[in-house]
Amino acid sequence: MRLRDIAAALSAPHVGDGNIEIRRITDPAGAVDGSDLALAMTRETALGLVGSKARAAVVAAGAEAPLARLDALITVEHPRAALAILTALFDQPARIAAGIHQSAIVAPDAEIAGDVRIGPLSVIGSRARIGAGTTIHAHVTVGADTTIGRDCLLHPGVRIGDRVIVGDRAILQHNASIGADGFSYVTPEPSSGRGAEAAGGGEATSTALRRIHSVGTVVLGDDVEVGANSAIDRATIAATRIGRNTKIDNLVQIAHNVVIGENCLICGMVGISGSVTIGDRVVLGGGVGIADHVTIGADAVIAAGSGVGSNVAAASIMAGYPAVPRERAFEQVRNLARLRTLFKEVGDMRERLAALERTKPA
Amino acid sequence: MRLRDIAAALSAPHVGDGNIEIRRITDPAGAVDGSDLALAMTRETALGLVGSKARAAVVAAGAEAPLARLDALITVEHPRAALAILTALFDQPARIAAGIHQSAIVAPDAEIAGDVRIGPLSVIGSRARIGAGTTIHAHVTVGADTTIGRDCLLHPGVRIGDRVIVGDRAILQHNASIGADGFSYVTPEPSSGRGAEAAGGGEATSTALRRIHSVGTVVLGDDVEVGANSAIDRATIAATRIGRNTKIDNLVQIAHNVVIGENCLICGMVGISGSVTIGDRVVLGGGVGIADHVTIGADAVIAAGSGVGSNVAAASIMAGYPAVPRERAFEQVRNLARLRTLFKEVGDMRERLAALERTKPA
Amino acid sequence: MRLRDIAAALSAPHVGDGNIEIRRITDPAGAVDGSDLALAMTRETALGLVGSKARAAVVAAGAEAPLARLDALITVEHPRAALAILTALFDQPARIAAGIHQSAIVAPDAEIAGDVRIGPLSVIGSRARIGAGTTIHAHVTVGADTTIGRDCLLHPGVRIGDRVIVGDRAILQHNASIGADGFSYVTPEPSSGRGAEAAGGGEATSTALRRIHSVGTVVLGDDVEVGANSAIDRATIAATRIGRNTKIDNLVQIAHNVVIGENCLICGMVGISGSVTIGDRVVLGGGVGIADHVTIGADAVIAAGSGVGSNVAAASIMAGYPAVPRERAFEQVRNLARLRTLFKEVGDMRERLAALERTKPA
Repeated sequence: MRLRDIAAALSAPHVGDGNIEIRRITDPAGAVDGSDLALAMTRETALGLVGSKARAAVVAAGAEAPLARLDALITVEHPRAALAILTALFDQPARIAAGIHQSAIVAPDAEIAGDVRIGPLSVIGSRARIGAGTTIHAHVTVGADTTIGRDCLLHPGVRIGDRVIVGDRAILQHNASIGADGFSYVTPEPSSGRGAEAAGGGEATSTALRRIHSVGTVVLGDDVEVGANSAIDRATIAATRIGRNTKIDNLVQIAHNVVIGENCLICGMVGISGSVTIGDRVVLGGGVGIADHVTIGADAVIAAGSGVGSNVAAASIMAGYPAVPRERAFEQVRNLARLRTLFKEVGDMRERLAALERTKPA
Repeated sequence: MRLRDIAAALSAPHVGDGNIEIRRITDPAGAVDGSDLALAMTRETALGLVGSKARAAVVAAGAEAPLARLDALITVEHPRAALAILTALFDQPARIAAGIHQSAIVAPDAEIAGDVRIGPLSVIGSRARIGAGTTIHAHVTVGADTTIGRDCLLHPGVRIGDRVIVGDRAILQHNASIGADGFSYVTPEPSSGRGAEAAGGGEATSTALRRIHSVGTVVLGDDVEVGANSAIDRATIAATRIGRNTKIDNLVQIAHNVVIGENCLICGMVGISGSVTIGDRVVLGGGVGIADHVTIGADAVIAAGSGVGSNVAAASIMAGYPAVPRERAFEQVRNLARLRTLFKEVGDMRERLAALERTKPA
Repeated sequence: MRLRDIAAALSAPHVGDGNIEIRRITDPAGAVDGSDLALAMTRETALGLVGSKARAAVVAAGAEAPLARLDALITVEHPRAALAILTALFDQPARIAAGIHQSAIVAPDAEIAGDVRIGPLSVIGSRARIGAGTTIHAHVTVGADTTIGRDCLLHPGVRIGDRVIVGDRAILQHNASIGADGFSYVTPEPSSGRGAEAAGGGEATSTALRRIHSVGTVVLGDDVEVGANSAIDRATIAATRIGRNTKIDNLVQIAHNVVIGENCLICGMVGISGSVTIGDRVVLGGGVGIADHVTIGADAVIAAGSGVGSNVAAASIMAGYPAVPRERAFEQVRNLARLRTLFKEVGDMRERLAALERTKPA
């Protein structure tokens, strides 16, 4: 691809030789010859251009680039937006051959659209429907009566249970589990309605844990992405739902009956307990935990590592364990650090107070 | 199934037409016709019956149900106990054909009971024994010399290493790992006996980390359930043990040499370090972490997100990081929130004290 | 193996009959006959020798062993170092038959060294290179253009994407994911450069999340170990790198662009966000979370459960959430526990101060 065409795709100006043929994008250190386009969008990486073998680079507006060493330079205003475009242009998605690999085991009554690719040793269950343009890599399991939309990408080891619905253009990474059974048990005595929580109580007997089966399913909207080794459990009687365009990172646990809105970002190692409801455009930072039955309003942001035990209003920014508004969380952290001083000061005041009391007029 | 038979299974009274044929349980919103039984066991979902297409419902005693809209109504005293019964009645477990799929690879010397089902592309190792009535779905690996009990259910992608023992009626969800090697290393110098913890010390050299191999195994009791993408590592020389009827949620890590009692509930994303011992009926909330070699007594409850660094007495209720008795944890959270006021008050007292000192009789 | 040869391998003295033929190592309780060597390296387990069927034992120097009950005894100075040697001597690694199982699907243009073992139903992609002596168990996926070194061990369910490089003697446990796509999105407006974090802001629209593709790869050094169900994502344009001899436990998430040094220990359930840099010999305790773009210096130790939000200097020992030097973290925990007393004391002082003010000379 010619450099000038890349600049055009970025809607960004370039200087120098626009006819350079670019075959690869790299970081400055990784460039090996003049066909590499070095991305140097931070101050630090821009410095790396000095020792790079790249002859062409993309830098952020305002960065100082060693122009003399380069044959061409593209300058972008919005580095991350540029990165989205550049990585799409040079993406090398894992490819498999057209058609259904002869070793895949596809139920005779599954409905597979014409241009679906199914990799080696995948298993497609009875009456499953796979939409046009979808790629299913090796070692994937798709359950009976499950529907996968168009242009989806299922990476090796993905497990999808029965009756699940996956929208169009969904991407499921390695070993993602969609539709395992929910974790739901009940102790018949002491009818507290608290289920699992009550099971540890003194009343529980050795035969007490009764399983609540997961008769429901999971519905993933269009453009949902689920990370490697994440798990989304099926609902008890209805559906666990992930809204359109919501992105879920690796090792995330989403329990039964959870309903998540659209355009959310659920970072790595988040744990969402049963029956939680999350609005649109919510961001959950890495490692966030959310207690069961909590509701989180649209546009809320929960900082990494926070534990949410009660409902969160829309557009709130929360942090801490238990989560409180971020400003209060920061204040608590500062206050905790100041306690050493406070203890000393109170000790000092105690002595001064005692001294005053000794001199008090009788 | 007739509504009167469902009521009988629930030992619950019904009003209206007991002869309605029920084909499905749903939430009120999900009902599509008169063969659906709407479960509406909370106040909120009971309100949803007004707009539902269901003609029959199950409600909790005391809830207000729109009787006029319904042809039949079952009233239950214990909603979650009823849910266990109802979901068992209408469960749609993933099924595979009888027998061993021709694409499964079963060692010739494995002992497979007569009515075992083994799905496509599963691998059963040498001398493995699979008990009667057990279903092994697609893409499962069972190691050599491993014993699986009767009536177990192994979902797609389960990995069981060599020499593992699984009791009867165990359920292993997608991609659960049983019997991977423990995470155990030692640095020869300094001979602190702390192993991994010492490895980061200044004495560690580039050749310092020595692997302690996992010669032991894993033993899962009867009726154990292990969630999707969870991992239970094998012991160093003996066995990592999970007691009868203990239930483990998704993405749980159970390290080598751990011994867990019976009837425990281990919620999602719990991490249990090496050589931890846990008594019977213990409940670990979501995201709990437990340091190595800790002992947790029977009937203890550890609140979600807590970090346990030392032994916990039986029947304790603990919370926080580090975990303390729950009442103290709550008090600490309240105290932390009150610090803002305390700092102001101490500042005010400081000024008043100084004022008093200035007026002190000489 | 004769007991005297075991003692020699341990460079440890033995008393008693050195000619006993040992077939197995066990804990004292697990011994069944005189061919078992009971390991009893702690005070507690040494007590267990009294009731054991073992006739030979290994104990730590200084422990009291019931010599009269035993036919032979080995005494070691460094129990964990001895454990590394003993478990290596008696390891029973999962074995598969020599050669490539007929059910494995190996691309015709993959380069497989002569003595590689590939188990049933594994898939090796185009142009992949597998080094001599490597064992790939059942159900493993190796992507196109990926290089696996010599003497590696890939357990069932491992997923390795395209173009990944794995060094020699690497061990990958069940279902480890190497080279899934990074979790990286951008909202074109507002051009904050914060990417994912900005997406939850009010400006985000329903079409706002744009995917940054992962064009880069993952490079694992020699002797790296990755635990069960862990995930290491590929870099955006360069490589996510794990240094030589670094050991990673189960359920660990390592995001795109992370660079980890040599000889690190990354314990279970650690989450490392994008573009984090970690030096050599760093120890991350269980459940540690690290925010994106943070740098952690060599020899640092981060205590279990800590959250690291900013750079950590070399050789630091950090704890808490947010992480602070461990001594300060301990102090904060103590101070938090003392608040109850402080509130009382300040309340008392308030009254005494008011009393003094009432008696103040006018």
